[in-house]
Amino acid sequence: MTKQNKTAITPTRDEDFPEWFQQVVKAADLAESSAVRGCYVIKPNGYSIWEIIQKELDARIKREAVRNAYFPLLIPLGYIAKEAEHIDGFAKECAVVTHHRLESDGKGGLQPAGELTEPFVIRPTSETIIGESMAKWVNSYRDLPLKLNQWANVMRWEMRPRVFLRTAEFLWQEGHNAFATAEEANADALKMLDVYEEVLRDVLAIPGIKGEKTADERFPGAVATYTYEAMMQDGKALQSCTSHDLGQTFSKGFDIKYQDKDGGEKHAWTTSWGLSTRTIGALIMVHSDDDGLKLPPRAAETQVVVIPFIKDEADRQKLEEYCDSVVVQLEAQGVRAVLDASDGRAGDKIWTHIKRGTPVRVEIGMREMEEGSLTFTRRDIGRDSKQTVPVDNFVDNCVDILDEMHNYMYEQAKNLLDQSIVDISSFDELEKYFNDPRNKGFARMDVSCLGDTACQQIMKNYALTPRCIPFVDKGKKVIIGKSY
Amino acid sequence: MTKQNKTAITPTRDEDFPEWFQQVVKAADLAESSAVRGCYVIKPNGYSIWEIIQKELDARIKREAVRNAYFPLLIPLGYIAKEAEHIDGFAKECAVVTHHRLESDGKGGLQPAGELTEPFVIRPTSETIIGESMAKWVNSYRDLPLKLNQWANVMRWEMRPRVFLRTAEFLWQEGHNAFATAEEANADALKMLDVYEEVLRDVLAIPGIKGEKTADERFPGAVATYTYEAMMQDGKALQSCTSHDLGQTFSKGFDIKYQDKDGGEKHAWTTSWGLSTRTIGALIMVHSDDDGLKLPPRAAETQVVVIPFIKDEADRQKLEEYCDSVVVQLEAQGVRAVLDASDGRAGDKIWTHIKRGTPVRVEIGMREMEEGSLTFTRRDIGRDSKQTVPVDNFVDNCVDILDEMHNYMYEQAKNLLDQSIVDISSFDELEKYFNDPRNKGFARMDVSCLGDTACQQIMKNYALTPRCIPFVDKGKKVIIGKSY
Repeated sequence: MTKQNKTAITPTRDEDFPEWFQQVVKAADLAESSAVRGCYVIKPNGYSIWEIIQKELDARIKREAVRNAYFPLLIPLGYIAKEAEHIDGFAKECAVVTHHRLESDGKGGLQPAGELTEPFVIRPTSETIIGESMAKWVNSYRDLPLKLNQWANVMRWEMRPRVFLRTAEFLWQEGHNAFATAEEANADALKMLDVYEEVLRDVLAIPGIKGEKTADERFPGAVATYTYEAMMQDGKALQSCTSHDLGQTFSKGFDIKYQDKDGGEKHAWTTSWGLSTRTIGALIMVHSDDDGLKLPPRAAETQVVVIPFIKDEADRQKLEEYCDSVVVQLEAQGVRAVLDASDGRAGDKIWTHIKRGTPVRVEIGMREMEEGSLTFTRRDIGRDSKQTVPVDNFVDNCVDILDEMHNYMYEQAKNLLDQSIVDISSFDELEKYFNDPRNKGFARMDVSCLGDTACQQIMKNYALTPRCIPFVDKGKKVIIGKSY
Repeated sequence: MTKQNKTAITPTRDEDFPEWFQQVVKAADLAESSAVRGCYVIKPNGYSIWEIIQKELDARIKREAVRNAYFPLLIPLGYIAKEAEHIDGFAKECAVVTHHRLESDGKGGLQPAGELTEPFVIRPTSETIIGESMAKWVNSYRDLPLKLNQWANVMRWEMRPRVFLRTAEFLWQEGHNAFATAEEANADALKMLDVYEEVLRDVLAIPGIKGEKTADERFPGAVATYTYEAMMQDGKALQSCTSHDLGQTFSKGFDIKYQDKDGGEKHAWTTSWGLSTRTIGALIMVHSDDDGLKLPPRAAETQVVVIPFIKDEADRQKLEEYCDSVVVQLEAQGVRAVLDASDGRAGDKIWTHIKRGTPVRVEIGMREMEEGSLTFTRRDIGRDSKQTVPVDNFVDNCVDILDEMHNYMYEQAKNLLDQSIVDISSFDELEKYFNDPRNKGFARMDVSCLGDTACQQIMKNYALTPRCIPFVDKGKKVIIGKSY
């Protein structure tokens, strides 16, 4: 246990935050790079977090009467060209399919053949192809609202890929809703932001600032983009989800029209909203420490690991059986518990679970077994939380302990966020603040500053962007910071 | 209700089975073609079936200690070339990504730019890219077994696309397991076939013949391919899933090696196994009738629909409230029930639900409400099952009714399958049998016939293929038939 004197992750957050992030991902065995530039393999430990996000979010999306569907991966080039504002925005770096066959190149290798008359783009997002379907499906006011969602992979050819944060291929859900009125569409974009907030806050323990993006930061084609802006431990922002009020941009581009009750033909009003595997990056950077990942308990596939402390091989079987009976009792309480009966020393297993962020570690040796007790340690607090208690006591309280951990992790992150927002009233002050490398976090300024060229210049110099116009300040303030 | 005198679907199964299939898909609003050749939009009614298959299968896959992960969509061309047997098999019709940028073509359109030095193929299956990862992850016998699964989209450029059955893009799960011994790998391939059988039989009510594919019909690179061969109502076979024992083909191609207990370095033994959205096509063609889809109850998002019969608008509110209370009671029994309070006549709603395959329709009018009764009809049996019973009685028995329907639908399909297998002992007989268009189904012959050129010629002439060598016949027989 001498390892506890140094950190498991090198470098530490203070030494080099971006490199620390990479090392946490590696130590927790979440993902790794692949032979495809910018694409990563999401390993089982990482994918299990995504599965929990999917399950929690999908249930809430369905609660809003949205139905899941699936649209083609490939988008005809002409669709992208159709929505001009869209092109200018982000559709430039895309994977383009130009051939539909492989042939021998005569040198033992293969080469593309069967050139397509119209190339296809691998979807960077699906407003266009879903818009095309919606145009067919919406005819009368009776067809509205039409609420669709898909869980899918998308691709954007990233120049500076970074695991979970900026990857060429990523996984997400994208919701696409259509309404008869502007008011309903706007209310829907705000409602879906609330749904995201619920998952981010209540499942992932990630606090954030709800607000609207400035005009320059909007999704191309949107009339309003809403966000839940989270802060990483290095003070940088990460947009954890977005919800767009698309107005009539796409309904006009793709002719989504309906006949209203009065007989008149009108264009629908649409929204789109997405949350991606990027959120896993946020979870890591909000919660983890210099010993590795800290998983919020509701996002943990394994919430409690039970580790037998075997000093004498003769005790192995009975000790493992006893540990297994504790696992069964915990499962009966609805806790996701596992016995770690793998090869190896208990001390090494403990470090593995620390690095992987398993919320609660339970250690049981012969002495605990004979006493009917166990020793447990909370990953969020660490060794100071280590306690030996009767098994019954732990089993009865485990759900509460996990809830307490969730709340504690949320509060810790919320406190950091709140403390890292500085009210700034002049451009000089803004420059001074971000000129000092010790200062991390967000500046809150009067929203009027955005129109000022001096302010724009300072923001440019320090790589700052307006993160959002918080709802809580009723549109009068803007949050400015660096971002991922 | 005069419509009940003719069929809702035109043509009928007997008139034109392939066209009937398309019309059932359309009438049940399951899917439709898209602007991308060979790619279909899976609409919410269709996708809900896939979600149920995913949920049921995923739980059973996890029970086998397989963990989900996610691997890149794009496969470097070199990987495909690496596995020579693989190339010869099916990797020829693929979507090929050659560029990573779109640029203006100067004429208001876009054109591909940024040519890649090595093109990528959109995965037709992932043995190669997963093999590459496995090679990194497997080092010692302690790393085995390694059991991975992914839920993903794959793409094969189909020349004759057909909704659900043969689509350029489709959804599936692909499992990839690695073992230390040949025996474990083979046992695993058989075990995963059992898992598929459970879902096909117990959830989708699809009977099948478990067996091994002949050498010619194996997955390229496999040493054995196992299948659960289902029969459609037109007597054609549909391979509802496959499970492959890949031997050391991929472990040698991708160098998946481990150090054994004895210190020696050995290649692992791998399996792969998949089930796709094709299964939805099987479900439709096994169960549906000339009035449209028949959903097996466990595959139905809506198991019971409650339709209020409103004769007088003044009764609408109280009748809908009463119907809703029935829905709530059914939900409390674990039944997926909904109230259909949409606009429109009750008779039209009934036809909509018949065509969509909703397992049980409940009709409640004022008279039923006053009596505390309801009228229900089973979709599998149709009007002959129509009964008026006290609400309590129906609510208490509904789970049993749904189970009974599941069993009945399975039995119906099983009987057809059993009756449609003919034992044939000579080539003449084989030719005679398939020369008569009234004969539909499978021929069971001695397995030795496969080596005979006369038999091969007859099979070629009648578009017959060996569907499988059934386990039940201990390798002595082969099932021959036409297939999808």
